[in-house]
Amino acid sequence: MVKRFKQRDIISIRHFNKEELLYILDLTKRMEQMDYTDILKGKVLASLFFEPSTRTRLSFESAMQKLGGIIIGFADSGITSVAKGESLSDSIRIIEGYCDIIVLRHYLEGSAQLAADIAEIPVINAGDGANQHPTQTFLDLYTIQKTKGTLEGLTVGFLGDLKYGRTVHSLAYALAYFGAEMFFISPASLRMPRDCIEELRNRTVTCHESDSLSGISRKLDVIYCTRIQKERFADPVEYEKVRGIYRLNKALLEEMGIKNNLKILHPLPRVDEMDESLDRTNYAVYFHQARNGIPIRKAVLSAVLGAIE
Amino acid sequence: MVKRFKQRDIISIRHFNKEELLYILDLTKRMEQMDYTDILKGKVLASLFFEPSTRTRLSFESAMQKLGGIIIGFADSGITSVAKGESLSDSIRIIEGYCDIIVLRHYLEGSAQLAADIAEIPVINAGDGANQHPTQTFLDLYTIQKTKGTLEGLTVGFLGDLKYGRTVHSLAYALAYFGAEMFFISPASLRMPRDCIEELRNRTVTCHESDSLSGISRKLDVIYCTRIQKERFADPVEYEKVRGIYRLNKALLEEMGIKNNLKILHPLPRVDEMDESLDRTNYAVYFHQARNGIPIRKAVLSAVLGAIE
Amino acid sequence: MVKRFKQRDIISIRHFNKEELLYILDLTKRMEQMDYTDILKGKVLASLFFEPSTRTRLSFESAMQKLGGIIIGFADSGITSVAKGESLSDSIRIIEGYCDIIVLRHYLEGSAQLAADIAEIPVINAGDGANQHPTQTFLDLYTIQKTKGTLEGLTVGFLGDLKYGRTVHSLAYALAYFGAEMFFISPASLRMPRDCIEELRNRTVTCHESDSLSGISRKLDVIYCTRIQKERFADPVEYEKVRGIYRLNKALLEEMGIKNNLKILHPLPRVDEMDESLDRTNYAVYFHQARNGIPIRKAVLSAVLGAIE
Repeated sequence: MVKRFKQRDIISIRHFNKEELLYILDLTKRMEQMDYTDILKGKVLASLFFEPSTRTRLSFESAMQKLGGIIIGFADSGITSVAKGESLSDSIRIIEGYCDIIVLRHYLEGSAQLAADIAEIPVINAGDGANQHPTQTFLDLYTIQKTKGTLEGLTVGFLGDLKYGRTVHSLAYALAYFGAEMFFISPASLRMPRDCIEELRNRTVTCHESDSLSGISRKLDVIYCTRIQKERFADPVEYEKVRGIYRLNKALLEEMGIKNNLKILHPLPRVDEMDESLDRTNYAVYFHQARNGIPIRKAVLSAVLGAIE
Repeated sequence: MVKRFKQRDIISIRHFNKEELLYILDLTKRMEQMDYTDILKGKVLASLFFEPSTRTRLSFESAMQKLGGIIIGFADSGITSVAKGESLSDSIRIIEGYCDIIVLRHYLEGSAQLAADIAEIPVINAGDGANQHPTQTFLDLYTIQKTKGTLEGLTVGFLGDLKYGRTVHSLAYALAYFGAEMFFISPASLRMPRDCIEELRNRTVTCHESDSLSGISRKLDVIYCTRIQKERFADPVEYEKVRGIYRLNKALLEEMGIKNNLKILHPLPRVDEMDESLDRTNYAVYFHQARNGIPIRKAVLSAVLGAIE
Repeated sequence: MVKRFKQRDIISIRHFNKEELLYILDLTKRMEQMDYTDILKGKVLASLFFEPSTRTRLSFESAMQKLGGIIIGFADSGITSVAKGESLSDSIRIIEGYCDIIVLRHYLEGSAQLAADIAEIPVINAGDGANQHPTQTFLDLYTIQKTKGTLEGLTVGFLGDLKYGRTVHSLAYALAYFGAEMFFISPASLRMPRDCIEELRNRTVTCHESDSLSGISRKLDVIYCTRIQKERFADPVEYEKVRGIYRLNKALLEEMGIKNNLKILHPLPRVDEMDESLDRTNYAVYFHQARNGIPIRKAVLSAVLGAIE
């Protein structure tokens, strides 16, 4: 059953069932196929970024304005009243008086839910610390659906930092609706959290864990890479070692054996975990993935603001 | 007599007589009642914030765009040519070539008047140091008028930092047109400046001063609170003492005795001078007050840009 | 021959021949004479400023929006994924998916060309380090053409920092198409680079070099001043000496003898190299020059986005 999206908060991927995910992906496709200029005319989006972002902020702001909407907001909390000691609750209560919808990126887990509880207008979580970033998962799903032709029954490898990578946890959660088999490939210190694995298994997902792609790569329909952050390692030598292992390049991948129609995703930014030799291959869909941010965010904004059914 | 607002600079509350204040409040009411989409189409507002602001900047930018106008500007002087040593005069002379109206927040007293003297287009002062912020006073007046039904003959208490609080000085100045009786409640070190009190008395306002609300609270129609800033105190112990005394909460207020229809205003941001127990009461109008920033700024922009009479 | 401007990158003044320069100046004139509201409706400009700018950024953003277009972007690289180690190439590849045209200011020479090579959409260089800023040169040319009535056969003095001043190099290059005679007046340590002089002479420009205006001033139709930056001098005493010599004021100029219709340009910001006594004279056209940023940028955006022929 698809709950109404109109006036709905978009906080966590866990608030959406399979039908709702498919509904959003279907709206997104319509956004790519047709021109919906001016359906959000006069509507105001407050784009509140307490943390840096390029992709998410710019794609929300482009999507909103392409549909005729208006943007207010900030890209940096240093220029706000937070500097004067204002609580997030008070900021939200005030700003909701100036707009029709809030997009919030904040460094604290739970901040988006807090904002949604306070505001009478809808709040979209654009990342709350290491927790949730649901429109990123929507666009990951959309990219897989579009480039693989289906979401059903795929074999998906997750590679890199699986411990802290919020995009991985959310995407794995969502793909569990679609009968995916999952391989989790990471250094021992950055493995998938135990409760995530357990939950996936309870939902009858076949999960495998490993510290290397070798022997696995040829089974995968999709590889979802993430950035391994230096800050996660106490010992820089350990970091350098791990980083080398999880760096993908075209020659290495083809040598290990992969399916012809393998697709590689990455939430970006990357640092050096994917070699540029991959960029021009048919495997690489990460730039295409980033661009799907526009139709996905058009779909979410239109649905939540009640401009489309 | 109401002077024409078209092309007029909005620099200080002192430049407006009673009729002009009522005219702006009347325009504001019309802005709340009707939709004036597109009356500022093609007009450009330069939003120049040399100091942080959430409320003022976002409400100006929302108001302008809701009326069809365009925004350029900055929210932080670090990203401007000021960093290269450019004078404010030169910045204004250049930027006025790109826009139809300037909204200026600057840390120096007198900066808005300087900008207005230089620019041929109208300038709105959105705060010049500790000096003036006239659209804040308009919205304070509008909030009182709307929630009390009238501006005439009210008994108003000002609470907190009355020495440095520019909003208090301006609001007291404006309310003197309307026969208010005023109570000024503050720690001794943060009393209303002597010249303000003197001027109010010369304008036949009955002024009282005190260091506590007790015995006074039951007389008040309106309490206007302000934030007491730690930086104002040489001695942190002194600050902690004072802060406790001027912290309002529901139980305390009701215990002291208050009118049923007391309204509490605050220019926000608050830190902890008003307890959250007040937020859901009928006394608290501060969030409503902040929201009045939209119709007030719509009214001022439309009037000054000659889009409405 | 005028190459199509539609979808063309605007990277360096060197990519434009005389006819193309005149074509842009002609479009600019049309932009001043007529109202082209909405010809860029629905188009998105990504305004990517990795370095501070007031004039360039605000004039691009005003021009784009006055023509009905949309802005996304940032004014400060601190708030982007660059902080997470993302390469410029990746940023461009992603952002081009969100917009129709990119305006880039970046501190590295060659960055704009790099961006243009990567992006499939057009890129406008809004300054790449000390290298190129072609729309600045367009507006310098337009200002000279408009205030002198012609670009042909003028005697032009360049004054100040001729070594590092990218605007000087570009303007001299462009004026060489129009038979200008050029005087380069600077301290010895900040002379025009040898290869610039040599190239101009090869293009049959009569070039003179000098360390003072005296004896020259009466010959000039145009003086193009630039800021002398303190950072260029190892010895602050040397800086103070030089700075005094190259500071223009009205009395000094008239005493030395100048043509009645001399026009003084400056790319701004100035610090103190032009005295305010000049501002109200007919010689000073620098504020007018800054304002020409609007029609110039309207012309460039419209031409490159194919909205005008």
